[in-house]
Amino acid sequence: METTITSLIEELSKYLETAQITQNETLLEQHSKDESYHAPHKPLAVIFPKDTTDVQHITRCCSQFKVPIYPFGVGTSLEGHVIPNQPGISVDFSLMNNIVEINPEDLIVRVQPGVTRTQLEKELKKYGLFFPVDPGADATLGGMAATNASGTLTVKYGTMRDNVRTMEVVLANGTTIQTGTKAAKSSSGYHLNGLFVGSEGTLGCITELTLKVFGIPEHIAAGRATFPTVHQAIEAVVSVLQAGIPIARMEIVDEDSILQVNQYSELDLSIEPTLFIEFHGNKSGLAEDMAFTEQLFSDFDCTNITFESDTAARNQLWEARHNLAYAYVHGYKGRKMMITDVCLPISYLADAISHARLMLDIYGLPGGITGHVGDGNFHIVLMFDPHDEQEIQFAQELNEKVVAYALERGGTCTGEHGVGTGKKKYQQQEHGEALTVMRQLKQALDPDQIMNPNKIF
Amino acid sequence: METTITSLIEELSKYLETAQITQNETLLEQHSKDESYHAPHKPLAVIFPKDTTDVQHITRCCSQFKVPIYPFGVGTSLEGHVIPNQPGISVDFSLMNNIVEINPEDLIVRVQPGVTRTQLEKELKKYGLFFPVDPGADATLGGMAATNASGTLTVKYGTMRDNVRTMEVVLANGTTIQTGTKAAKSSSGYHLNGLFVGSEGTLGCITELTLKVFGIPEHIAAGRATFPTVHQAIEAVVSVLQAGIPIARMEIVDEDSILQVNQYSELDLSIEPTLFIEFHGNKSGLAEDMAFTEQLFSDFDCTNITFESDTAARNQLWEARHNLAYAYVHGYKGRKMMITDVCLPISYLADAISHARLMLDIYGLPGGITGHVGDGNFHIVLMFDPHDEQEIQFAQELNEKVVAYALERGGTCTGEHGVGTGKKKYQQQEHGEALTVMRQLKQALDPDQIMNPNKIF
Ligand SMILES: Cc1cc2nc3c(=O)[nH]c(=O)nc-3n(C[C@H](O)[C@H](O)[C@H](O)COP(=O)(O)OP(=O)(O)OC[C@H]3O[C@@H](n4cnc5c(N)ncnc54)[C@H](O)[C@@H]3O)c2cc1C
Ligand SMILES: Cc1cc2nc3c(=O)[nH]c(=O)nc-3n(C[C@H](O)[C@H](O)[C@H](O)COP(=O)(O)OP(=O)(O)OC[C@H]3O[C@@H](n4cnc5c(N)ncnc54)[C@H](O)[C@@H]3O)c2cc1C
Repeated sequence: METTITSLIEELSKYLETAQITQNETLLEQHSKDESYHAPHKPLAVIFPKDTTDVQHITRCCSQFKVPIYPFGVGTSLEGHVIPNQPGISVDFSLMNNIVEINPEDLIVRVQPGVTRTQLEKELKKYGLFFPVDPGADATLGGMAATNASGTLTVKYGTMRDNVRTMEVVLANGTTIQTGTKAAKSSSGYHLNGLFVGSEGTLGCITELTLKVFGIPEHIAAGRATFPTVHQAIEAVVSVLQAGIPIARMEIVDEDSILQVNQYSELDLSIEPTLFIEFHGNKSGLAEDMAFTEQLFSDFDCTNITFESDTAARNQLWEARHNLAYAYVHGYKGRKMMITDVCLPISYLADAISHARLMLDIYGLPGGITGHVGDGNFHIVLMFDPHDEQEIQFAQELNEKVVAYALERGGTCTGEHGVGTGKKKYQQQEHGEALTVMRQLKQALDPDQIMNPNKIF
Repeated sequence: METTITSLIEELSKYLETAQITQNETLLEQHSKDESYHAPHKPLAVIFPKDTTDVQHITRCCSQFKVPIYPFGVGTSLEGHVIPNQPGISVDFSLMNNIVEINPEDLIVRVQPGVTRTQLEKELKKYGLFFPVDPGADATLGGMAATNASGTLTVKYGTMRDNVRTMEVVLANGTTIQTGTKAAKSSSGYHLNGLFVGSEGTLGCITELTLKVFGIPEHIAAGRATFPTVHQAIEAVVSVLQAGIPIARMEIVDEDSILQVNQYSELDLSIEPTLFIEFHGNKSGLAEDMAFTEQLFSDFDCTNITFESDTAARNQLWEARHNLAYAYVHGYKGRKMMITDVCLPISYLADAISHARLMLDIYGLPGGITGHVGDGNFHIVLMFDPHDEQEIQFAQELNEKVVAYALERGGTCTGEHGVGTGKKKYQQQEHGEALTVMRQLKQALDPDQIMNPNKIF
């Protein structure tokens, strides 16, 4: 491998500048891991493409030398996605971070894959627009598309897959394709767009994304509602969904998590199971939706509901929610984070969360429950001691039990984080024979296993 | 082929009842065509599976004898999709027409593929629910998923792809898979669901569908707005979309089409370019949306706007719109129907429709313009004389020009009808290198070209 990588770098140097190729230890280290508990492995080199042509050269050279490519956004994924667990190179998209076009007439934007969520948000604001997928980390759009990320607004606006119109992708063989068109819908040929979104870098490198954007709503109302138990809070969520109220956000934060939020964000929220909610719309429609929601919540013994319609208070609320995982990391220094990520049909949600809490208590691990419950998706943020064999085992067992509970009820092992290496073991149970089909697709498009090998499968 | 089909039928008779296999001339004839202008070809036999096991037997036997399968819903597709243009058998799903489960808690239903749109609608109504994809024909859910159909409500509720949670599919080799889960979102593995929706029977037979359903909205307001020109009507549409008003339906019907509607549905609508619109929501929100829409429409010289909120009047309005294509068929007896189906980024829509009208006038063919303009999708319903060589050529040229106009502007050759054989010739231009990827996927999943061969590609 030593000689191969030397030859590869020599070959790449014909096309790229010296500064775009590095074997600097700090950078190798940075590209060896994600933000979770998965064991790091260093890449042989890190390459920084500047444009699509660079990416074509990289994939062609890697194909020629049969050296694996590990695409890298900012490494906030949570299941070992970016870790080069075979000798290979990390391809870091941070230099491809231009917002290429903002098109308010068609409500679309074109961005390079290294653009981050907050970078895009800031720019769109100038046009009165926003992009609705907001994971709780400042991820890149390329990484978000590759994992089919979602966020607090998904209950109304959908996941990445719903908000990508087309992507430019460089395949393992160096060919460049467009996965879709700029039209809002199409029945022309196979849906490559949907296939490449969520493919975790295993089918090709995303080099440009055309995304749907939305006008910032005329009126926004955000609020917090507290309940005696998490179970009642979730029953309240389900009743809102079943009533068809067009809620824009609906997040659970349990008592333990409120504690962390209070400490980290210097807030003083009441330590109760809390729903963070938001409505988008016109003024009178909103008022009616809010009143109806309050009424439904009261059926589940809602102890208090407060609405904030001024922008500053609202932003503070959502920032606190967004920083939740970091609050745990901060609150439990020295421990490692494991985040479960199941998603279930909504009728099972309340019981699934009770079951998760019970498991957490039985195993006696510190952690709390949070999640995009409007989608049926919730997380246990679990903090374990990476030097304590028993805690490691307990954390893993707990994750397995939570996944088993969801799969038995027609749910999925990962609502938004993706498979990486951490969720590989559940793929057979979740997909059955369909997993063979997925393998066939991978084999057809990446026969030499160059693209992020050993992930998903 | 004669002996092969005899052997195939013999083999199939081991598993199916005699009545499920037919070579009756009338039935062969019925399964030789769709509802458009494409030349018919009779299948060698028609098979009626009763359940998934039957479909597994059929695909295994057909695989063994290398006899193509042409899945058949009710044959309302418009691009030759169901036509057996190589010797093969038609597999008709009309006996698989059970609604398996209605689950109001999770807002999902499970249906067999032969269930029709109106059959499902009628049943769901009893639960206060509806399914939002409504093509202008009483299609089957299997056929609708296979073509990624959409309809008047797509602007708010999405296409078939957006409303299918998971499907049971029998592949060419007889294996049965589930393409997804019952959860609202997932990042687990490749998005097979999106790939199989819109695959036009070329990758497998759909044997069950799990679909999202919605509560019938609390309040519905439907209306008609007339404009001096189609161009102004479309500019009005675009302004509503850009303003982010959550419109539920927005359809254009031009003067020629209003004439047909009036005759066929015995109505007395004013002969002007007309938008049919609808809003879903709560009472006060609706009032505000309607007022805002009226105001925007007046900027484009809207001549008249009328709202009907009573159910009977509203249903009459939408039924008239739904029957539009049949109105043309009825109004031009002896002629054949060709329907164009492009979809574009909305900023090009008004000019694209003007261009389409100009082409229609230049070629001097009878027809009109209609469509789901809220999605950027419109149709020319074109009636040509199938015995007049020049009219046939004109119709084809016109279609080509309309498609070229859309493709040059980042649109698609088919917004909802699909490729079949009629849109094959545009695939290379629309998809470029991506078409090679699609072919690779087809090759991986159907190496013997058993499933609806020579369609799409
Ligand atoms: C505190 C915290 C909160 C989070 N909250 C959420 C949440 O609410 N919702 C959610 O969905 N996720 C969440 N995540 C997970 C993570 O943010 C997402 O998975 C995100 O999409 C990863 O983006 P990234 O840019 O960091 O990608 P990376 O981690 O760098 O890469 C992720 C995957 O994408 C591939 N990839 C990256 N760029 C490309 C490219 N250009 N072409 C092809 N493949 C590429 C990589 O190979 C890898 O497989 C959270 C993570 C943290 C740490
Ligand atoms: C008057 C009229 C109006 C229309 N309006 C619209 C509209 O508004 N929107 C729209 O999208 N379309 C419209 N269409 C087109 C047509 O209704 C749709 O394409 C519809 O989805 C076809 O359904 P079907 O049951 O008739 O399928 P068929 O025509 O029988 O089959 C269509 C395709 O699906 C495949 N197929 C069928 N069943 C299965 C199965 N179980 N498994 C795998 N493959 C299968 C077939 O092989 C074929 O490729 C219209 C057609 C007409 C005649």
